Amino acid sequence: MSARILEGRQVADAVKEEVAAAVADIPKEVGLATVLVGDDPASHVYVRSKRRVAGQVGINSIHHELPAETSQEALEDLVRSLNDDDAVDGILVQLPLPSHLDEQRITTLIDPGKDVDGLHPYNLGLLALGKPALVPCTPQGVMRILDHYGIETSGARAVVVGRSFLVGRPLGLLLGLKGTDATVTMAHSRTVDLAAFTREADILVAAIGSAKMIGPDHVKPGATVIDVGINRTEEGLVGDVDFEKVAEVAGAITPVPGGVGLMTVAMLMHNTAVAARTHVG
Amino acid sequence: MSARILEGRQVADAVKEEVAAAVADIPKEVGLATVLVGDDPASHVYVRSKRRVAGQVGINSIHHELPAETSQEALEDLVRSLNDDDAVDGILVQLPLPSHLDEQRITTLIDPGKDVDGLHPYNLGLLALGKPALVPCTPQGVMRILDHYGIETSGARAVVVGRSFLVGRPLGLLLGLKGTDATVTMAHSRTVDLAAFTREADILVAAIGSAKMIGPDHVKPGATVIDVGINRTEEGLVGDVDFEKVAEVAGAITPVPGGVGLMTVAMLMHNTAVAARTHVG
Repeated sequence: MSARILEGRQVADAVKEEVAAAVADIPKEVGLATVLVGDDPASHVYVRSKRRVAGQVGINSIHHELPAETSQEALEDLVRSLNDDDAVDGILVQLPLPSHLDEQRITTLIDPGKDVDGLHPYNLGLLALGKPALVPCTPQGVMRILDHYGIETSGARAVVVGRSFLVGRPLGLLLGLKGTDATVTMAHSRTVDLAAFTREADILVAAIGSAKMIGPDHVKPGATVIDVGINRTEEGLVGDVDFEKVAEVAGAITPVPGGVGLMTVAMLMHNTAVAARTHVG
Repeated sequence: MSARILEGRQVADAVKEEVAAAVADIPKEVGLATVLVGDDPASHVYVRSKRRVAGQVGINSIHHELPAETSQEALEDLVRSLNDDDAVDGILVQLPLPSHLDEQRITTLIDPGKDVDGLHPYNLGLLALGKPALVPCTPQGVMRILDHYGIETSGARAVVVGRSFLVGRPLGLLLGLKGTDATVTMAHSRTVDLAAFTREADILVAAIGSAKMIGPDHVKPGATVIDVGINRTEEGLVGDVDFEKVAEVAGAITPVPGGVGLMTVAMLMHNTAVAARTHVG
């Protein structure tokens, strides 16, 4: 193995320190409302982790837990009351919602100024306009890893595999912003000869959701490989990248677990602090 | 010259016919408000052309002309009153505005449901989410040209040169949507070795704003070349593509004038009809 390991823990800790200092500097209590609907065990784990990290950085966590059979109307009423509540700077509605609920409607109902997940169309539109405000957490976490380890984006060829609105699309926009200046290719399941694209990448991001799909033949020697995938398999959690083999070829690589996954919660706290600072003016 | 010429006129006429039929089918008068501030001669020409085409397709054009010294407040009041006016289905504020006015604030003030230019962050966000509603006119016009001439996007390599929020960025999102399925590379002024990217393109879009910047060495033989540039030079209006020379290499090419430029107004009418249909429910 020759690749440098890009440790998510290190970067996430740096972000959390920064956020804790920012929060301490805001002349009001900073509040993050978490909304959890139903009994999905993974969602419970994620929300618990978000609340724990909020506590670590001095953010007041305001938790709402609703039964799986909650109606669309009741959830919308809750979101509206959180929009109006000055103690709430950020609103996180944990996805996925039970299937009878309309996620898109709920996401769009959240006040864009409290949309700390960055998934409101208004916030995605600001990103497309080159004026990002609250940016989706996982792609923002990827950018922080690149920045932390001094990986040059300007003039680099970046290839993002996967075009989800949670990760791939916003990350493509971020990498191509003025000042970041990568030349970005968005590849996906319909791309013909994927390896021909990925082998040209200086920065290769895998966000497909398919275990170990990216192998050493997909990677240019010395490239930076960012693995956003988290796939549950018989051998445990694995990424979209075949870590052992790709680490022989890449110049730098994020592990799974211990890579991008740790960044998501840290950037959620960052967004909450950004929102709070806007709320105090 | 070997390339097939992609005639904007033909496609624009097809769109206008389709819009006229759609407008005739809507059980109310369809209204497009045009707002022109100041004395910019090009803006006057553009708005006149938009009002004329509105008339051709049966859309009622409601025109507001304001002096160059109009205040931000007065313009915002006008936009608010147009938002509230049921006779108005679409609002077009002609850009650029005089420099003392805040374009971003005005664009964001327009009701997203009447934002027929598709430049409101909310509408750009819906596009980034893969759920386009009102889409910016010029990129949408490019997609219609490709569709009209049966140029396959699925599995194609598309390279868009230029990352403006008016054209390049939304066009990149459109080409990569599910169902359209091109593999899209966004190139720009900071791209290193531009020709290495453009020479791989099955579909090459030039939206840079630099006269004749794309020459035959940038183009793969047989590629489709779409020229979005409109540059005023001593030899008249020319595109971003060196048409005479590139037409020897390309398989298909849009001329300037007579190409993409004609599509923008046609797609504005299309968006106005889409908005009106939403308003009648």
